[in-house]
Amino acid sequence: MSGAAAVAVVSGGLDSTVLAYHLRAEGRDLRLLSFDYGQRHARELEFAGLLAAGLGARHDIVDLRSAGALLRGSALTDDVVEVPEGHYTDESMRATVVANRNAIFVSLAVGVAVAEGAGAVGLGVHAGDHPIYPDCRPEFVAGAERLARVANEGFISEDFRLLTPFLYWSKADIVRRGTELGVPFADTWSCYRGEARHCGRCGTCVERREAFELAGIPDPTDYEPAAGAA
Amino acid sequence: MSGAAAVAVVSGGLDSTVLAYHLRAEGRDLRLLSFDYGQRHARELEFAGLLAAGLGARHDIVDLRSAGALLRGSALTDDVVEVPEGHYTDESMRATVVANRNAIFVSLAVGVAVAEGAGAVGLGVHAGDHPIYPDCRPEFVAGAERLARVANEGFISEDFRLLTPFLYWSKADIVRRGTELGVPFADTWSCYRGEARHCGRCGTCVERREAFELAGIPDPTDYEPAAGAA
Repeated sequence: MSGAAAVAVVSGGLDSTVLAYHLRAEGRDLRLLSFDYGQRHARELEFAGLLAAGLGARHDIVDLRSAGALLRGSALTDDVVEVPEGHYTDESMRATVVANRNAIFVSLAVGVAVAEGAGAVGLGVHAGDHPIYPDCRPEFVAGAERLARVANEGFISEDFRLLTPFLYWSKADIVRRGTELGVPFADTWSCYRGEARHCGRCGTCVERREAFELAGIPDPTDYEPAAGAA
Repeated sequence: MSGAAAVAVVSGGLDSTVLAYHLRAEGRDLRLLSFDYGQRHARELEFAGLLAAGLGARHDIVDLRSAGALLRGSALTDDVVEVPEGHYTDESMRATVVANRNAIFVSLAVGVAVAEGAGAVGLGVHAGDHPIYPDCRPEFVAGAERLARVANEGFISEDFRLLTPFLYWSKADIVRRGTELGVPFADTWSCYRGEARHCGRCGTCVERREAFELAGIPDPTDYEPAAGAA
């Protein structure tokens, strides 16, 4: 790959799917990387596969299940911790934090970028992530970019970048950008529960619904009907 | 685990074995973490197991083989790249660099430490690593410690530490310290080739031999006899 190429971390979710389309629209040669860390919603990885097929990009899924088993205590990896319901920015969503997750993902993506000669790693973090997830905040992004350069000095370009174009955007902004880019939103997965349909009640489902509403764009997601609804 | 506990990254090699004994001698509750990244010398992991048994510490081996397969181009992970012979600090040893390796290992060890409530991660880097391996240098260690705190803000102690007591030591210093601590050096593995015996000629074998010589301590390692020797 060339220096203008990027390795994008994609989950199959809405944010990273729009990220990949956005980076492609910038003319970047893209390689996609996903992680199976034993997440309850591992079915998101099928949607990452759809994204890769849609963009015609190489896609690798790194098997981190043995690491994920050691990162106990999160509702996303630990069956004994329940997925909380409510708003994505509620304090209760702390239960969905996976220890050091983005540092792990970025370190592996940087390794692949260095091995392939790509000049950047892309990460779909946005402002709505900041309240609960420390590894989505501007300080993390700046520190991770610096560390990538230091850790690979002599093997990496001095202007190696951690690309986070949505860092100060809301999720509604991402939905608007995705609409401009023709992103097939129905082919993305957000729900932390990872069952047959989006549950509509966990933090990330609530955030997803709200983003389409705020953007004024029809939400194509197939949500579970609310209990008691016809 | 308590805040005084540490997760030590151990390979089964000499440096990280002495590190584990050193941290234990400081009174730390220890948990050991190793990585199978498809390294040619994966047999080092058996020696990490001996270390764990000797210290009575919990030991987990994280399976990173699927990630390792993507980190091509290093003599340690790529069968088409030969293991260079010569001194450990020779320019030719650049072929043994695995892209972003310590950033990957530390990010995973920090994740385990956060999940377990341990206040530190230990890494056996030393001054002899600095010329060739950028992810063993003081700038890397400082950046990785900062990133761990930032990436886990609110979930980690503000004085979380990346413990690298050998950062400015030579390998001979480590051999001396290991001798004081009664480390069973014969139960450690350095050779990058990973065959039945230490080859005695690859960079890390040369460095190991030299360290015992400089320390003036008998080297118990079973090296392959030199070609032409009786």
